[in-house]
Amino acid sequence: MSKKNKQFVEEITPMEVDFPQWYTDVITKTDLVDYSPVKGFMVIKPYGYAIWENIQNFADRRFKETGHKNCYFPLLIPESLLTKEAEHVEGFAPEVAWVTHGGKNELAERLCVRPTSETIICSMYAKWLKSYRDLPYLYNQWCSVVRWEKSTRPFLRTSEFLWQEGHTLHETAEEAKEETLQMLEIYKEVAEDLLAMPVVCGQKSENEKFAGADSTYTIEALMHDGKALQSGTSHFLGQHFTKAFEIQYSDRDGNLANPYHTSWGISTRLIGGLIMVHGDNRGLVLPPRVAPIQVVIVPIAAHKGNVMEKVDEIFADLKTSIRVEVDDRENYSPGWKFNEWEMKGVPVRIEIGPKDIEKSQVTIFRRDILEKTQIPMENLKETIEKLLDDIHESLFNKALEMREKKTYIAKNMDEFKKIIEETPGFIKAMWCQDTECELKIKEETGATIRCIPFEQEKLADTCVCCGKKAEKMVYLAKAY
Amino acid sequence: MSKKNKQFVEEITPMEVDFPQWYTDVITKTDLVDYSPVKGFMVIKPYGYAIWENIQNFADRRFKETGHKNCYFPLLIPESLLTKEAEHVEGFAPEVAWVTHGGKNELAERLCVRPTSETIICSMYAKWLKSYRDLPYLYNQWCSVVRWEKSTRPFLRTSEFLWQEGHTLHETAEEAKEETLQMLEIYKEVAEDLLAMPVVCGQKSENEKFAGADSTYTIEALMHDGKALQSGTSHFLGQHFTKAFEIQYSDRDGNLANPYHTSWGISTRLIGGLIMVHGDNRGLVLPPRVAPIQVVIVPIAAHKGNVMEKVDEIFADLKTSIRVEVDDRENYSPGWKFNEWEMKGVPVRIEIGPKDIEKSQVTIFRRDILEKTQIPMENLKETIEKLLDDIHESLFNKALEMREKKTYIAKNMDEFKKIIEETPGFIKAMWCQDTECELKIKEETGATIRCIPFEQEKLADTCVCCGKKAEKMVYLAKAY
Repeated sequence: MSKKNKQFVEEITPMEVDFPQWYTDVITKTDLVDYSPVKGFMVIKPYGYAIWENIQNFADRRFKETGHKNCYFPLLIPESLLTKEAEHVEGFAPEVAWVTHGGKNELAERLCVRPTSETIICSMYAKWLKSYRDLPYLYNQWCSVVRWEKSTRPFLRTSEFLWQEGHTLHETAEEAKEETLQMLEIYKEVAEDLLAMPVVCGQKSENEKFAGADSTYTIEALMHDGKALQSGTSHFLGQHFTKAFEIQYSDRDGNLANPYHTSWGISTRLIGGLIMVHGDNRGLVLPPRVAPIQVVIVPIAAHKGNVMEKVDEIFADLKTSIRVEVDDRENYSPGWKFNEWEMKGVPVRIEIGPKDIEKSQVTIFRRDILEKTQIPMENLKETIEKLLDDIHESLFNKALEMREKKTYIAKNMDEFKKIIEETPGFIKAMWCQDTECELKIKEETGATIRCIPFEQEKLADTCVCCGKKAEKMVYLAKAY
Repeated sequence: MSKKNKQFVEEITPMEVDFPQWYTDVITKTDLVDYSPVKGFMVIKPYGYAIWENIQNFADRRFKETGHKNCYFPLLIPESLLTKEAEHVEGFAPEVAWVTHGGKNELAERLCVRPTSETIICSMYAKWLKSYRDLPYLYNQWCSVVRWEKSTRPFLRTSEFLWQEGHTLHETAEEAKEETLQMLEIYKEVAEDLLAMPVVCGQKSENEKFAGADSTYTIEALMHDGKALQSGTSHFLGQHFTKAFEIQYSDRDGNLANPYHTSWGISTRLIGGLIMVHGDNRGLVLPPRVAPIQVVIVPIAAHKGNVMEKVDEIFADLKTSIRVEVDDRENYSPGWKFNEWEMKGVPVRIEIGPKDIEKSQVTIFRRDILEKTQIPMENLKETIEKLLDDIHESLFNKALEMREKKTYIAKNMDEFKKIIEETPGFIKAMWCQDTECELKIKEETGATIRCIPFEQEKLADTCVCCGKKAEKMVYLAKAY
């Protein structure tokens, strides 16, 4: 390793030494994000934002394919609206930012910067909805929300983040529940098919559900350090809000009825997830489908013969279906460039030099397995397209293996505590569904119930905590 | 006209009777927008938001083609940052919303909800920029901004609106000026090639320029009522902000230098513009390239023979390249549907009934000229694609004619006042470039200098106001 190369790698603290520092090094040194002058607020830099754009494009297409339309509701919500649904205000009021002055004048009523938009949206739905013929309402908005957080980390928990929030109304509880689960399934697609990040799908406990929901569903991913990341949630809100906001319509029998309601969201938090699932000690490892740059071409001995001519030719071919860039900077050596693009997690590097051209081949470097090979120049685009798919599969399988390796079973609290201390990860355990046990586990170990998974296993007959009869298997973990 | 049809048209106040009421009727009855519980804040409904998405897609593609990347900066800006550039704070401080509390705690420093992001972005650029090699910075963000307005109208002037704001840094003033003009040219493309809305391009007067700019450039459109709409602005900011924020880099000679700076923006205001340029007394007339639905197919006698089969077949064919919908609602008559889609401004309606099928034709209705014709079913997609282009051209030409008809020349204040009172529109006049004359005209007539157009004409030797020597021709008008 040359001096220059070494310097690069040393910039990132190894994850085994200090995982939080590794994360901080990766996100800042790869130009994804930066800290802003406002405590807890982040700046998403172009390389990070391009990842978000790819997530948006994928999700938005799926939302539209399933009949949803986008719209936009005001950023500021009057205090009187926020407080209409009792559980909701209790959950959110402690963490909202309050606007008290407009220009030089004090406002008659405080306005909060939206922490989520159920209340303002329901106030409008109440005005619009007339008849069962208007249902379902299938609307979504892309925006930023503000939640005043004490302790923040870029992407994972920030006082402002970007997200989408879907808000739908339905005639029946069944239809609303189907919608809730359909959107969770789409979130699973985003996580697994786009981000190559395997997730456990399930229901939140009463204690962990959204403030104002009947039930909350979640996708949970496991990070390299054995902590879980809640990566997307979908809420069946029943009639909590539609009654509080008096949303009524004339039903098929001509009677006034309250519709059933869902909401669902994913956010820039997913970017933190993909970093902590795929990254390594050299930096980012980006799954190909979400990578802003899928392929970087580095010319070797660019001044020689027809190297640049060939590079341009290949670039022109690839760019019709692949996000590809040529790194033709003159002041940097190929070795320096290799290291930079490895750190930035570009899935595939193509090196083209005089020797490659002689042999009608290119040299390929796979970021995920750090492997160099030579492949023929012929049908290069098709080969690379297939390679990108292979890398996606390979990253997904690797992450799944990691998760399985770090998933444990505990049958009593002694086993539970030993796992938490020695080998952090997901713990599968039986639970009696009593909130007391849930809170006791949290207090004694710091772990929370991540979800009651759809795929149940009968691990034992008794609760991991109280030893009483238990019928539900849950996933627990310390979480971000 | 049947009773039902009549009822529809009567819902919209004729523009000759009351133009503001016509506008309000059109935007609310066509489901573009609604008023929210927060005074001055609007809800953009799905049909309106889809127009914005089409504007975004067009503009974002052009931004990226010209080398710009998207990013995201915080919503909230510390007061101390807002006040760093003297002219800027003077311009914006009176109209910002102030966040004073986070959760239950009063903040040590007030934060304003961004009215525009020069200050927060410059504070980050100061941190990032090191060398001339890093330049140019070509970044943009899509977001919402808040400006506390006293008198608001949906799309045209609201306390919150959606926009994009580009913020670039350059080595030389020349390069920054080129960027400023390049982005103005792209805004002209958005207005003319997408929205079929002709614009006058030029420079703002000193009095009308952006708070903190060296010079501001604008595209100005003329509405049906003879008022002008500033539809997009691009600012050459010189070194005002880069000095105030101490943005410095090591230049080609190794000296520290301040870069040159631009910013530029278009907003949801454009939607108000296209309504007031193309709309008529039946409602919206949407230019095809921005219309959420370009073609609606209405089956006639849908239950008869193979009507629905043919409709499905045509729909499947068209939808590969056209935004098309089938209105197969059973509870509504064709006449009712015709009126609804006319009001909503869908450019082309296709009617298909048993008689059409018999003759292997479809009936076409053009919203812009209210004309029905029959065309062969063969090669329908190609015919419709061409028709949509023709409609775009036709709308543009009609709007240009309207503008030319409403553009007047005034050589003295008597002529000027007569035009303003009797035939509102653009007034071309010579101006001595003295702010006193500008302010006097504004005070006496309500008209402002919209721009000093790039295309100059020598109308006279003397200023329309003071009669002294004048070398610049300007466009004046009352404006939104």
